Amino acid sequence: MNVRIGDSKQHFRTVTFDAERNAVMLIEQRLLPHDFQIVAANDYRQTAEAIRSMVVRGAGAIGATAAYGLAQGVRAFSGKHLKRFEQRVRTVYRTIEAARPTAVDPVNAMKTVLAAMRPGSSVAEKQALALAAAEEFANEDVRHCEELGRHGARLIRNGMRILTHCNAGWLAFVDVGSATAPLYAAQAQGRKFRVYCDETRPRSQGATLTAWELAQQGIQHHLIADNAAGHLMQRGEIDLIIVGSDRTLGRTGEVANKIGTYTKAVLAHRHRIPFYVAIPLSTIDWKLRSGFDIPIEERCESKVLGAWGTIENRKSTTRSKSSAAKTKTLPPVYVRVANPGSTAVNPGFDVTPPELITGIITPAGIFKPRELWKKRRELGFR
Amino acid sequence: MNVRIGDSKQHFRTVTFDAERNAVMLIEQRLLPHDFQIVAANDYRQTAEAIRSMVVRGAGAIGATAAYGLAQGVRAFSGKHLKRFEQRVRTVYRTIEAARPTAVDPVNAMKTVLAAMRPGSSVAEKQALALAAAEEFANEDVRHCEELGRHGARLIRNGMRILTHCNAGWLAFVDVGSATAPLYAAQAQGRKFRVYCDETRPRSQGATLTAWELAQQGIQHHLIADNAAGHLMQRGEIDLIIVGSDRTLGRTGEVANKIGTYTKAVLAHRHRIPFYVAIPLSTIDWKLRSGFDIPIEERCESKVLGAWGTIENRKSTTRSKSSAAKTKTLPPVYVRVANPGSTAVNPGFDVTPPELITGIITPAGIFKPRELWKKRRELGFR
Repeated sequence: MNVRIGDSKQHFRTVTFDAERNAVMLIEQRLLPHDFQIVAANDYRQTAEAIRSMVVRGAGAIGATAAYGLAQGVRAFSGKHLKRFEQRVRTVYRTIEAARPTAVDPVNAMKTVLAAMRPGSSVAEKQALALAAAEEFANEDVRHCEELGRHGARLIRNGMRILTHCNAGWLAFVDVGSATAPLYAAQAQGRKFRVYCDETRPRSQGATLTAWELAQQGIQHHLIADNAAGHLMQRGEIDLIIVGSDRTLGRTGEVANKIGTYTKAVLAHRHRIPFYVAIPLSTIDWKLRSGFDIPIEERCESKVLGAWGTIENRKSTTRSKSSAAKTKTLPPVYVRVANPGSTAVNPGFDVTPPELITGIITPAGIFKPRELWKKRRELGFR
Repeated sequence: MNVRIGDSKQHFRTVTFDAERNAVMLIEQRLLPHDFQIVAANDYRQTAEAIRSMVVRGAGAIGATAAYGLAQGVRAFSGKHLKRFEQRVRTVYRTIEAARPTAVDPVNAMKTVLAAMRPGSSVAEKQALALAAAEEFANEDVRHCEELGRHGARLIRNGMRILTHCNAGWLAFVDVGSATAPLYAAQAQGRKFRVYCDETRPRSQGATLTAWELAQQGIQHHLIADNAAGHLMQRGEIDLIIVGSDRTLGRTGEVANKIGTYTKAVLAHRHRIPFYVAIPLSTIDWKLRSGFDIPIEERCESKVLGAWGTIENRKSTTRSKSSAAKTKTLPPVYVRVANPGSTAVNPGFDVTPPELITGIITPAGIFKPRELWKKRRELGFR
């Protein structure tokens, strides 16, 4: 999507491949929203490290990064010896797989690339097939998000006030995003609307990433504390809610997503506000039989106990007179907000039951959550 | 309540009066939870300034501070001339009234002191009556909170997990608090329980003030992001919810309280978890006929866009090599968390309807919210 560079707008993908340099090019997401930089991962080890250290995050984005990283690793092999080449392929695969061991997207993406390489009869052919497959994987991610956006955009009318939670935006995919895709599609169709972004404590992805995306794209938006959404719904100031999902159960229609999603769904239900979940088909889990079987990660308590941000007025916060202390853009710092002796619990996700969900927006159309199982063939489950 | 000073516990009130020095002694609440200090307001102007600048906050606490401040001002008058004395009384009254013009508590408290002074026939007599009335006002605030606590403690059983929102603790009153009063009373009766403190963004009073209070008092507690309460309720990990209130409508049973309270009430209702509101009788509004008539202040957006906290590891955040930069306790700083170009909306309060409230805990007993009007004589409404 667009990023404002100076006075102009430029189009970027979250991850691209520079074939000439054999480099994976990534938006350095850890600097957002305070700084925008593209960084190059110059070999497959650097690409794995970028996944591990969260330079890139989000299901679609790390999938494409892994696909490119595998192509990058096999392209760096020089020689014609197929056996040694296969050894290199395994090394690259394992290195990237180990970068984020609990995520399924890098593995699925790399399997797609491996399968595409199989017909190649020489090292050079396999190298070419790997890159083509990685490019196709990334392009397909974009196409799916665009299709999802087209379906979702039908829900958006002029003047609507739309609530989002967390970031399921283009930064989490190769482009366009899931929960944001209907917004971008509706904007492209000339519709005017306003977005309320939940701050999304404790990691504040709404305040940082979603707000940044919407600002770059020129979509009118306001941040709110997570506590304020209920009040706005009560006062009739929210017309539509769209969120993403980390895992949607195909059998039950239950949706696991960032902590706080369930709360918004309960509030929306009380106020009869349409509550939609936007997902690529790859996040549907066709196996699990109950939302209670979804493991809810307990995350690091420091996120609840404090916040990351930039200090704007250095004068009031340091006694140093050096000019360095007056520099405008300093890296974000962590501040402890909470009482020093206190502890926190920090569940990362929650599960929303299907009766609170108006519809699931997918690249294949919008479905009732309990329809997914019936439509499983159509949705690609074999 | 108790504060840990070194290895021992000491009892403090939020506000007291030092008759010898004619000084109002206050806990400097702006330093909490990072530092505990008692500051002296040495004349009535300093007392007014302490109210204005939020050294002291909370309905009961600023009421008592105003009562003491009025007594302090009239006690500083030297001479026997009654007319000049009355002029001084008016000056002091107006100075303190102007410190927090929208709050009703300082005015109500000072009116009590003025009424008590009336029978005095000399300056000295009136001065003595003023101090006695201020002391009585503060003591009555404590007694009311203690009575409220006794009623509320009946709801708390061993092993319970209790959720609170914001701070309606002893720091907001002279002692004991409202929402915290049942906790302290149950603790004194030897009951064991655990408290979940909502962080309470955007000002984080749960993470700072409530967590500090509970830690000082030795009550087991964990902070949670406001987003996590729904998930914990869904998993059966919350047994009881007690919150405070800024204004409770006697005619309808509607409760205005810190933003986010309504959300917790909606969640509690869905999960059939008892939801109680603890209030001193002075916060009942017997006039308003609808919660929609309660003005909801729009607060400063910077609170939503960032956070206040202390930097723990200076080395990673400054290039200065001076020893000052390595000092451990630095004053809290503001960090900008949100995307720099984005704006926020920040409603300060929300209104919870009576059907979501299990009971109102008052010094006179526990009532259904819709019973208040029937019981209005009993509850002191004339």
